[in-house]
Amino acid sequence: MKAAIVYKTRDVAESVRDFLKELNVDSKLYEKACEELGNFDFIVSVGGDGTILRILQYLRDEVPIFGINTGRVGILTHAKKEDFKEKLKKALETFEVEKFPRIECLAGNEELIALNEIVFASREVAKMIEAEIFVDGYHIDTLRCDSVIVASQIGSTGYSFSVGGPIIEPYLQAIVISAVAPFRIGWRPLVLKMDRKIKIVAEGLAIADGQKRVFAEEIEVFKSKYPATFFKKERIFETVKKVREIS
Amino acid sequence: MKAAIVYKTRDVAESVRDFLKELNVDSKLYEKACEELGNFDFIVSVGGDGTILRILQYLRDEVPIFGINTGRVGILTHAKKEDFKEKLKKALETFEVEKFPRIECLAGNEELIALNEIVFASREVAKMIEAEIFVDGYHIDTLRCDSVIVASQIGSTGYSFSVGGPIIEPYLQAIVISAVAPFRIGWRPLVLKMDRKIKIVAEGLAIADGQKRVFAEEIEVFKSKYPATFFKKERIFETVKKVREIS
Amino acid sequence: MKAAIVYKTRDVAESVRDFLKELNVDSKLYEKACEELGNFDFIVSVGGDGTILRILQYLRDEVPIFGINTGRVGILTHAKKEDFKEKLKKALETFEVEKFPRIECLAGNEELIALNEIVFASREVAKMIEAEIFVDGYHIDTLRCDSVIVASQIGSTGYSFSVGGPIIEPYLQAIVISAVAPFRIGWRPLVLKMDRKIKIVAEGLAIADGQKRVFAEEIEVFKSKYPATFFKKERIFETVKKVREIS
Amino acid sequence: MKAAIVYKTRDVAESVRDFLKELNVDSKLYEKACEELGNFDFIVSVGGDGTILRILQYLRDEVPIFGINTGRVGILTHAKKEDFKEKLKKALETFEVEKFPRIECLAGNEELIALNEIVFASREVAKMIEAEIFVDGYHIDTLRCDSVIVASQIGSTGYSFSVGGPIIEPYLQAIVISAVAPFRIGWRPLVLKMDRKIKIVAEGLAIADGQKRVFAEEIEVFKSKYPATFFKKERIFETVKKVREIS
Repeated sequence: MKAAIVYKTRDVAESVRDFLKELNVDSKLYEKACEELGNFDFIVSVGGDGTILRILQYLRDEVPIFGINTGRVGILTHAKKEDFKEKLKKALETFEVEKFPRIECLAGNEELIALNEIVFASREVAKMIEAEIFVDGYHIDTLRCDSVIVASQIGSTGYSFSVGGPIIEPYLQAIVISAVAPFRIGWRPLVLKMDRKIKIVAEGLAIADGQKRVFAEEIEVFKSKYPATFFKKERIFETVKKVREIS
Repeated sequence: MKAAIVYKTRDVAESVRDFLKELNVDSKLYEKACEELGNFDFIVSVGGDGTILRILQYLRDEVPIFGINTGRVGILTHAKKEDFKEKLKKALETFEVEKFPRIECLAGNEELIALNEIVFASREVAKMIEAEIFVDGYHIDTLRCDSVIVASQIGSTGYSFSVGGPIIEPYLQAIVISAVAPFRIGWRPLVLKMDRKIKIVAEGLAIADGQKRVFAEEIEVFKSKYPATFFKKERIFETVKKVREIS
Repeated sequence: MKAAIVYKTRDVAESVRDFLKELNVDSKLYEKACEELGNFDFIVSVGGDGTILRILQYLRDEVPIFGINTGRVGILTHAKKEDFKEKLKKALETFEVEKFPRIECLAGNEELIALNEIVFASREVAKMIEAEIFVDGYHIDTLRCDSVIVASQIGSTGYSFSVGGPIIEPYLQAIVISAVAPFRIGWRPLVLKMDRKIKIVAEGLAIADGQKRVFAEEIEVFKSKYPATFFKKERIFETVKKVREIS
Repeated sequence: MKAAIVYKTRDVAESVRDFLKELNVDSKLYEKACEELGNFDFIVSVGGDGTILRILQYLRDEVPIFGINTGRVGILTHAKKEDFKEKLKKALETFEVEKFPRIECLAGNEELIALNEIVFASREVAKMIEAEIFVDGYHIDTLRCDSVIVASQIGSTGYSFSVGGPIIEPYLQAIVISAVAPFRIGWRPLVLKMDRKIKIVAEGLAIADGQKRVFAEEIEVFKSKYPATFFKKERIFETVKKVREIS
């Protein structure tokens, strides 16, 4: 087996490499995520949720990720630097993985992919867009706001959460449409089936997981055929509890 | 075919009866919902959402309901008194129906059923309960609040909505746990798969769709095997738009 | 000097009495708040915010209160049982006090007084009232909801907070009108000058600080001429920070 | 008397000029607000709230503004194009004016002034700042968010409102601190006395009423000595009702 270690924190990454060697797993260290990552049997991310999201920008293949949290909240991670040995060892023994749907976004000629969310934002800070929102071709709203967020169930605890979106459990396939600073009394997030096609028309900036930014005059968002693959977490509602630590 | 007409508004009910007669459908008028309703081929509800919820308290069989709104919002209804003829005729021609999951609640020795929501409330107005909340046996929270609400996707636009819950589209099978006056900074509604089993431990009053009330020391809420059956609506996101009219 | 000690926690109350004796202050223990409290030079409350609110139900005179928190959050309190000696001693040396406005409520023939809030609630759990709301005689709203809350700035971190109300700093004289489960898309709390007169017409139950309950068909709420008197707190934004601990 | 007419909508502006001539008032038309406006006896704004906010950027003198709404909501305006004659005539007869406090902002070497709000935003769309927030020198919070908003009571129905802030009546002198996309479970807007001094430390972009933008590493916000002057509105809670029309 061959592992890639993508890190934000060098010293922890090195002790991961040493530990993997003890388990007879060769590994290669990467300070930055890149295309090569698809060639490994699994990936260890040493950093926060951002590190994992950057890795996923380069992955279409179903290479499972194990996250060691050296950041703040680490909702997507599996272990802390203090206990990673035990948890990583166990993960590799069973090699149980789970897949979560990602969403894709057509923005002009570009194709974006995201685990958490696509944000369709005003090009300028604190300016409004006027967004026409369609679901499966049906016009459901014209909304003036700073941004529209289309988040997956996993992303429900990310940016969508910051603007008042609900928490969706990781195993309910769903999309939530939220808005940043909606200029409408009584706008409320809308939870949809994951297989809906969402179109948003506005002059804006499409942002995938905070990683990639593209200008567009309309975007289409839909379930990707490339899920994100992770080692299985021990307890399914761990995430829900972790959200409370966001502070 | 034999229809029951359950009404809040007598005169509209009578013109429904006359109209059904023109269509060669015999009908019987009921001022109150009752057990007999299960014996009809379909039911016309003349009133608001409350009328439909009362009908459903008596239905286990899959008798489809057609709602004529004479109340305020009428999210569950299919027509207004002004246009019911055309819409009812069309509904009977195709007889296309759709089923929405209901939730059941074990509260002591009683079994409650609800389309919208089970509320587990303090026995006294404006007093808090301390609710232990479990999902599939896993303890996810201890929450002090006036009430915990367990709503279906259909109920997401009902009482849960009034306390800040998200709108869930009618075709996403989901449960949302909301709370009335949660004494926790940062409580946020939680959206779960419909097949989760929820247990709430607290001394409280279980209320099904605002219709039936039972004291209990704990309740269990889960998907019922008895769905609610309605004539199909013309447009699937009609509901989402109707919600905005709540005022 | 003569002090009353009103307690929820007996043993802490006794050590307060002993400590006051060392400072040459005679004191009398009360398990329950009562009319006599107005005759003392100051009052020590040993319990939570509820204990202080109960004391205030019996006080019209400006007898300052010092709160020792043996409960959970204790937003109104001055010290914990671990550090009360130092803080109480300091408070008695300077005897600096501060007054916060209370609100009064005419409900039928009864007069209620509250530091935190007047709740005008449905008589029955989880049932709506339809409340006509007037400010200085001007009709501002007709709202269907479980309850309307009229809170003072001090009460902004109490029940009003649980239903989404803003935090108002203790030194801004203001009233906030909030609602429990408002059946209106986009209801938002309203912050008013403290000297506004608020009238609410609905068949309901008026509740003052969760302590006293009176049925009424309309209530009038206005600033009381009897403020609540407390020993001065060390830091003015302590409260704002304490709110975050509510969990 | 000499009036300036600042307009977004030319034809309405011309009929205002003609109407003022009938009343023996000379007027000059401006397509853009500018420094000259301070020399007039009063100003008529023909446009939306944005037009009024642009005028105020150029006014330190207490020249009263009369707003004719040709935009959407027009919370700050006095009349519509349909009824401006009657209302403007009445306003000029009594010449009753009212002043609302503005807030000033020191951002590096620049001084900004705002009627509604100062936004301190991330320099880049959908990126977080980490803001240290101080009130009167006291550190009250470290908050990661897209932007911090410091709004006046008048601004409470503007951008602050879009992110969940409360409505503050126009006659309560108050400041509200709100946040766009706060990455904190349970952040809640904070209402303060108008005379507090607020300091926010973060690398950001200070924006006054959406009109003027300045980069800064910290900002100080405080009550300006230059209020905004308007002709008096007929009814004081008109604004509160208008807010509901935002859609």
